[in-house]
Amino acid sequence: MAIAASSSLLLLHHLLLVLASWWRLADAAYIAYNTSGGVVPGKLNVHLVPHTHDDVGWLKTIDQYYVGSNNSIQGACIQNVLDSVVEALLADKSRKFIYVEMVFLDSCSVIILLRFSLVQSSLFEVNLWPLNGGWCMHDEAVVHYIDMIDQTTLGHRFLKQEFDQLPRIGWQIDPFGHSAVQAYLLGAELGFDALYFSRIDYQDREKRKDTKSLEVVWRGSKTLGSSVDIFTGIFPKNYEPPPGGFYFEVNDESPVIQDDPLLFDYNVQERVDDFVAAALSQANITRTDHIMFTMGTDFKYQYANSWFRQMDKFIHYVNKDGRVNVLYSTPSIYTNAKHAANESWPLKTDDFFPYADRAHAYWTGYFTSRPALKGYVRLLSSYYVAARQLEFIKGRSSSGPTTDSLADALAIVQHHDAITGTEKQHVANDYAKRLAIGYAEASKVVESSFACLTESISSSGHCLPVTKFEQCPLLNISYCPPSESDLYAGRSLVVLVYNSLGWMREDIVRIPVVSDSVLVLDHEGKEIESQLLPIKSPSTALRNFYVKAYLGKSPSITPKYWLAFPVTVQPLGFTTYFIKSAKQTGSHAVMSMISSSQGMENSTMEIELGNLKLQFDLDGNKLSHYFNQRSLVKASVEQTYSFYSGDDGSGADPQASGAYVFRPSGKFPIQSEKKVPLTILQGPLLHEVHQQINSWIYQVTRIYKTKEHLEVEFIVGPIPTNDGVGKEVVTQIATTMNTSKTFYTDSNGRDFIKRIRDYRSDWELQVNQPVAGNYYPINLGMYIKDDSTELSVLADRAIGGTSLVDGQVELMLHRRLLHDDSRGVAEALNEVVCVEFECEGLAIQGKLYIRVDPLGEGAHWRRSTGQQIYSPLLIAFSEEHEGNWSNFHITTFSMMDHSYSLPENVALITLQELEDGSVLLRLAHLYEVGEDKDLSKIAYVELKKMFPGRKINITEMNLSANQERAEMEKKKLKWGVESSSTDETIVKGGLVDPSKLVVELGPMEIRTFILNLDKSVTADKNK
Amino acid sequence: MAIAASSSLLLLHHLLLVLASWWRLADAAYIAYNTSGGVVPGKLNVHLVPHTHDDVGWLKTIDQYYVGSNNSIQGACIQNVLDSVVEALLADKSRKFIYVEMVFLDSCSVIILLRFSLVQSSLFEVNLWPLNGGWCMHDEAVVHYIDMIDQTTLGHRFLKQEFDQLPRIGWQIDPFGHSAVQAYLLGAELGFDALYFSRIDYQDREKRKDTKSLEVVWRGSKTLGSSVDIFTGIFPKNYEPPPGGFYFEVNDESPVIQDDPLLFDYNVQERVDDFVAAALSQANITRTDHIMFTMGTDFKYQYANSWFRQMDKFIHYVNKDGRVNVLYSTPSIYTNAKHAANESWPLKTDDFFPYADRAHAYWTGYFTSRPALKGYVRLLSSYYVAARQLEFIKGRSSSGPTTDSLADALAIVQHHDAITGTEKQHVANDYAKRLAIGYAEASKVVESSFACLTESISSSGHCLPVTKFEQCPLLNISYCPPSESDLYAGRSLVVLVYNSLGWMREDIVRIPVVSDSVLVLDHEGKEIESQLLPIKSPSTALRNFYVKAYLGKSPSITPKYWLAFPVTVQPLGFTTYFIKSAKQTGSHAVMSMISSSQGMENSTMEIELGNLKLQFDLDGNKLSHYFNQRSLVKASVEQTYSFYSGDDGSGADPQASGAYVFRPSGKFPIQSEKKVPLTILQGPLLHEVHQQINSWIYQVTRIYKTKEHLEVEFIVGPIPTNDGVGKEVVTQIATTMNTSKTFYTDSNGRDFIKRIRDYRSDWELQVNQPVAGNYYPINLGMYIKDDSTELSVLADRAIGGTSLVDGQVELMLHRRLLHDDSRGVAEALNEVVCVEFECEGLAIQGKLYIRVDPLGEGAHWRRSTGQQIYSPLLIAFSEEHEGNWSNFHITTFSMMDHSYSLPENVALITLQELEDGSVLLRLAHLYEVGEDKDLSKIAYVELKKMFPGRKINITEMNLSANQERAEMEKKKLKWGVESSSTDETIVKGGLVDPSKLVVELGPMEIRTFILNLDKSVTADKNK
Repeated sequence: MAIAASSSLLLLHHLLLVLASWWRLADAAYIAYNTSGGVVPGKLNVHLVPHTHDDVGWLKTIDQYYVGSNNSIQGACIQNVLDSVVEALLADKSRKFIYVEMVFLDSCSVIILLRFSLVQSSLFEVNLWPLNGGWCMHDEAVVHYIDMIDQTTLGHRFLKQEFDQLPRIGWQIDPFGHSAVQAYLLGAELGFDALYFSRIDYQDREKRKDTKSLEVVWRGSKTLGSSVDIFTGIFPKNYEPPPGGFYFEVNDESPVIQDDPLLFDYNVQERVDDFVAAALSQANITRTDHIMFTMGTDFKYQYANSWFRQMDKFIHYVNKDGRVNVLYSTPSIYTNAKHAANESWPLKTDDFFPYADRAHAYWTGYFTSRPALKGYVRLLSSYYVAARQLEFIKGRSSSGPTTDSLADALAIVQHHDAITGTEKQHVANDYAKRLAIGYAEASKVVESSFACLTESISSSGHCLPVTKFEQCPLLNISYCPPSESDLYAGRSLVVLVYNSLGWMREDIVRIPVVSDSVLVLDHEGKEIESQLLPIKSPSTALRNFYVKAYLGKSPSITPKYWLAFPVTVQPLGFTTYFIKSAKQTGSHAVMSMISSSQGMENSTMEIELGNLKLQFDLDGNKLSHYFNQRSLVKASVEQTYSFYSGDDGSGADPQASGAYVFRPSGKFPIQSEKKVPLTILQGPLLHEVHQQINSWIYQVTRIYKTKEHLEVEFIVGPIPTNDGVGKEVVTQIATTMNTSKTFYTDSNGRDFIKRIRDYRSDWELQVNQPVAGNYYPINLGMYIKDDSTELSVLADRAIGGTSLVDGQVELMLHRRLLHDDSRGVAEALNEVVCVEFECEGLAIQGKLYIRVDPLGEGAHWRRSTGQQIYSPLLIAFSEEHEGNWSNFHITTFSMMDHSYSLPENVALITLQELEDGSVLLRLAHLYEVGEDKDLSKIAYVELKKMFPGRKINITEMNLSANQERAEMEKKKLKWGVESSSTDETIVKGGLVDPSKLVVELGPMEIRTFILNLDKSVTADKNK
Repeated sequence: MAIAASSSLLLLHHLLLVLASWWRLADAAYIAYNTSGGVVPGKLNVHLVPHTHDDVGWLKTIDQYYVGSNNSIQGACIQNVLDSVVEALLADKSRKFIYVEMVFLDSCSVIILLRFSLVQSSLFEVNLWPLNGGWCMHDEAVVHYIDMIDQTTLGHRFLKQEFDQLPRIGWQIDPFGHSAVQAYLLGAELGFDALYFSRIDYQDREKRKDTKSLEVVWRGSKTLGSSVDIFTGIFPKNYEPPPGGFYFEVNDESPVIQDDPLLFDYNVQERVDDFVAAALSQANITRTDHIMFTMGTDFKYQYANSWFRQMDKFIHYVNKDGRVNVLYSTPSIYTNAKHAANESWPLKTDDFFPYADRAHAYWTGYFTSRPALKGYVRLLSSYYVAARQLEFIKGRSSSGPTTDSLADALAIVQHHDAITGTEKQHVANDYAKRLAIGYAEASKVVESSFACLTESISSSGHCLPVTKFEQCPLLNISYCPPSESDLYAGRSLVVLVYNSLGWMREDIVRIPVVSDSVLVLDHEGKEIESQLLPIKSPSTALRNFYVKAYLGKSPSITPKYWLAFPVTVQPLGFTTYFIKSAKQTGSHAVMSMISSSQGMENSTMEIELGNLKLQFDLDGNKLSHYFNQRSLVKASVEQTYSFYSGDDGSGADPQASGAYVFRPSGKFPIQSEKKVPLTILQGPLLHEVHQQINSWIYQVTRIYKTKEHLEVEFIVGPIPTNDGVGKEVVTQIATTMNTSKTFYTDSNGRDFIKRIRDYRSDWELQVNQPVAGNYYPINLGMYIKDDSTELSVLADRAIGGTSLVDGQVELMLHRRLLHDDSRGVAEALNEVVCVEFECEGLAIQGKLYIRVDPLGEGAHWRRSTGQQIYSPLLIAFSEEHEGNWSNFHITTFSMMDHSYSLPENVALITLQELEDGSVLLRLAHLYEVGEDKDLSKIAYVELKKMFPGRKINITEMNLSANQERAEMEKKKLKWGVESSSTDETIVKGGLVDPSKLVVELGPMEIRTFILNLDKSVTADKNK
């Protein structure tokens, strides 16, 4: 890069180089190695790219990797790597090294020194080049695009601020498959000129080798087309040195070059021949005169000199030999050389999922592995979005709590062995701990922000609030001490409901209460309708066990009811509600009507609320039909459960199912041993159908008065394994739609990609695993369609999904396995939860959202409900004692102009006050081209109304906000493709007129701005 | 030490330190570690001694270790160690490191740099301290004291010249037992103040721990007494870090100190507690307030920073804790601290042999392992002595061949896994190759020296000789092309016989010839008596097989006879003999009379020559009696063979017999399957009795007209192992003497040490291995005695020996084993020799020399014959065609005054011209105090007669000639001992009077001088 030093170090550096060159002069009987050459036209150029791949946690925790502890698990110490690499680079300015995981640079002492010494200007370069530049090398299957953007921004801004560096190359060498969003959004839109990686399907790789198509131009977005093309290089084998003995870590066994004629075993010619052979072999499958040797692998360069000493010699002697040209290079130099060749490259569209490294090893298990961690990440991802909004609204504190540690934890957990679930258990625990710590700090920001905003002094400079708010992170399992306390005369519960979306929002919230005698008042003190739903024993059992497990103590109180009530909240604002004891009043919350299917005479049963009617088959004890009385869609929708038995790896073509790999050995429908009747709860706001599917699956199907989808909340687990069989639990949603093998899954929660069963567009698929090979990652949801309707399913976290039968959707909800799948983690994915040394398998509580629409109308629901699922209402609690809350508090609020909300097709994905007081704003158009007849159009956001009363200075940035967008566009390389239709119409927003301050967004466009807001021009936001 | 830099580097160094301190400042959240403290009085001081132990060949060859190749056998790269250590030392001047094996420093590039930069003066110190300072860390059991001195001198002079360094500490941490000669000669006499090591008998160690006697004063010489006392520290366990997790090589599993509060797993207090516990545990068995932690082990510090980073932290935090004081230290600082404590230490005499690391693991096998390599080393050791003499006499060539590569090879092979036979086979091959290369170059020095000396121009400046000499390194197996060629009229063989001893010498030489019609002329052309002995088929078979194996081709000629003739050669001189065809003359060599014991009627047979008469028992087919007609000693002397079956390690207390460990599982006498008759060869010069002991042991017993000992030449092998049993072959020499369990073996060929069967003087021995535990190393020989006679046996190489039965001597001659003994070498000691892919077990041909003397008279024979065995006559061949050799050549020569020879009790052990033209001279008194009634007295050497006609400037040096002896004596620390008789009388030579130039030598004294000889004052040496 240019990790540069202050001017006072110039002389020192010069002298260091003198010393270094003396040392190297002295090496091997005074041979000075000539390593300074560059590319030589007309020759085969071998670009040596020295690199390490430092997992941000995997077998060891991130800190253990950094300091080098816990080496009995894995010998790895990143401090060694960075210390010794910097020394090796200082010793010879021809040497180069690339580094990827910024989180490690952030805590590295040598880097701190270099950073510290940079204050003035860049006077010398250490050839330590950042690639990717994110906090980690994130996964691409099970991460949400907002998290990808956030963790990349964290790294990019660190690099920009500390080293004035702009990475220009993507380096996703290890993730287990590659997403379209990665290519176009976290590639082209960052300003990257190329993307490199290693892992693609083994069949795909073979064909690409045969056709010299490992290097392509990838067009990841249908909507944005050629404007987001990126050069993409796939490595011929892996990200390690080429075959032939070129590993030079301390104690590695590759033959070193022995070039000292005074010692025995002089082997220069032999090793030069090995190198040339490796180069020619790779050149044989590569276009142009440039090939790349990735010189390193996981956690290598613990003593960098051991590698550089050998590479120095290879460069010297191979170039002396003359058959090929070798140089210290970087992917940047390599990319430039590829570009200069002026080649037309094969065009790649869609993505690289699923990934199989051999016939029976589809890495599709990790789409679901550790569903609790995946759920926790999703929860905190949206919490981080909201918390930053509130941090901005209140004003970022330079001393107090911030959202930074949550940012750090969330960034780390996007790593491709973190959220993927492919780490060891103790490492998964470490991630969860980091998230919890991050949440704890961010929750203080949220609570103090609420306090400031509710107290009327909120908008005047500093705020020292007195109001205390509390939140309930375990609300999902009905544990919420503030709401569980007794209400009595004079004491009522204050419920503040925050909406982090840019739209006005109506929803039903629910909180656990102990009494059936409560009522709910709105922010003006008027009683509103509310409904009580008894908390059933499976939920109580889950609550009691997990509260004990998480908090170390059993809750003293057990709430009996969920209290549900409707809320209306302005965009980026809150509304306050009050829960009071109803003992002294006549009215109170409506108790749900409870009935049982037992004894019902019909073989079907219906529930109906608002526009929705559901029919259940009482013989099969399952949902059977969906009917929307508004759209008149009527569909057969059967929902059932099955499990796959995980292969134990003992059979032919041995490969166990494990954290990475999904390899089923059989599929078994799940039916209750004995038929348990359905329990039906009905009330004015929502109905619930409770089903005990079997002894370890419980499900509630919900419909709401105001919604047209059904919500399925399941508790799956503990999955029994006492039969010695690991199990992977799926739910199927079957319709009679004729879907012609086709289904659609999202890419990182953003674009939908068409999938065809047993088919790949890039090669003729040899089907070896008809189930696992058809699984795809789901972050937002999936849908199927025929010529009249479409069935959409949305999820609350990343899961794996497929359609194995026409008309059917299958989603994997939970996995518990007993064998390791031999990809290094060396543990079975067998999650347990312990209370006082009694352990049981982890249970998962999650939600699916299902809806059937007329053809062409599903996108609207998927996109807008998808945003609501991603960003649930944020609820905080306080209490009042004298009924006078409103006298001293603001009860409703919106950051924006009260008449304004964002267009329906635009989401606010980032609103964050940066350390320097400027504001990072990201707006995302939510629709692809052609996705919705009304909404797949250009949208307009009026910043003046978003930030009323502020003077706004605006700069458009690239996606990661490390450079101005215009500069980025100017520098970006254009790539020729072999065949591309020229008739594409790309709609994008124009430059923002600084006087009008209206941001235009074309379909799928995300625009990133740095705003400087003059805070002194305040307005009364609460009028 | 003070590897110092030129003044031009001063600024650089200063800036480097600034940079380094910044780095360390930046480490772990800006903690600056305080590592600069020293010893703190009144506290327990823990001396951290960072070190590596770099075997000069073991599992890999020395060059493989240096460059780091062949890592599949063992991960080890000394270049990594030295490069990274120097960098780590530069980074903090408090850090220290010790280094032992100078051979690696010699080729190290960073050291070359430092050396190169030292030209001017020592301006800064790199704390890289040399210990021991020899070329390698030599073995102590099977090495000859002359080799020990030579290899140490090589290293010490390198250190002095290149770095102006004088090592003052012995560091023999790994050798498998420790010799008295090491302590007093290669310790005290070098000027060392202390000696440290690790390996002593496990029973000994336990007792010493109990009595706090691991640190002692060792008085290694009876003769030199307290004048050679040396402080000796034995480590409590091994030479590694203490128990408790203090290994910090890259990827080591010890817990690192995690002191960054921003990361998880902060563990400073826990690790400080571990350290203090380890320190207190060691303090508990150590006298004074000082303990040493040996921080390192074999081939460690490949990335030195990984160790120093942790040690920095331990020093910082443990000192902050305050319970103990920790410091970067060296054995030198530690020794000074021990000395300053003014303690009286336990006195240790004799030595530390044999070594057992547990009950059934006596490391006494290696006394004999690889007897061919041991023999080759001994052969070249004496050749090197002679070649240096001839190099000096001729004048050292600055361009031409020198003896330096032989010096290097011999120095390397003294390593404790080289000559010991405990290396892998490919490494043993590497040593042999180095020796062969060294010999090849040295032989050119010898041959050109002979040419110069024989041509009359020899003494005038430069010599460009025309005469060609050849030598026969395979003469021992009767392969000698020059002597095997046909002699015809006019062509005769010129035989030059060189005597490297300082005494006139008479001996019988023999050479193989093809014809029975030859005669021998002396240097004046007079015919002398000579004898022909037919070469028997076992010798011919050995010759043909091994010549093919060594040279790759079969000899075309097979000589039929040994031609033996008597020679007389002046000290440090030569005599020329001529072998002619006798076809045209009447007289010729006498053919030996051949007879067979077959058909002899008596049950005994006698042979007699000179003063000696031997009787053989024809029933047992063995020697039975010895009779000396001069001394009138008559003794029953039975010589027989047995073998031990090597334990295969499968039984109880598993431990196989192997390269290191001798563990017999049974003992089996060797008798011929069928009785093979003796063959007797008799002639005027010598008689031989040939015996086929069994199918794989052949023996010739020889007596000479002029000698009073019998010479036993044996061929043992290939040892059969097709019965699946490894075998260790011994010969027993049994007398009827009453020896009361007592026998005497030499220490490195110098002092004799009394051994008592099943007894140790330092502790009450628990006898677990009654055979292996009584074996001792033999370099010169051993003897037993009773109240009237003594039996002495001398050997031609290092072997193991014992006396398991009173009156009997047992010597182990050869070993062939089928199992590894689990000490790391991971190969069975199963030497084979291959010819065209046909391999057979290695056969050994060797000699023993046996004599019985009246009590008190054996020493004279042992010492003087011992010198002759060590330094056989050196024979070179040329040819003449016209009988006119004498016209153009000098035929007899002595370097010394022709009237002079050295006193009988003094040997010249070094005479060497150094690179600067000065001359290294070492003279050794050969007798211990009281050893011989006449010769254990002060001796006088007249240098003027040794170097006639030369102007001599003399400086007395310490043993390794790196400092003046007077300086050394001045600096040397004196140590108190607990109990020591004060009435010792030590006789030593006084200072040399520069005008008289007479060197006095007291018993066992070795004196070392640097002479400057004015060469221009020449005399006619040949008059």
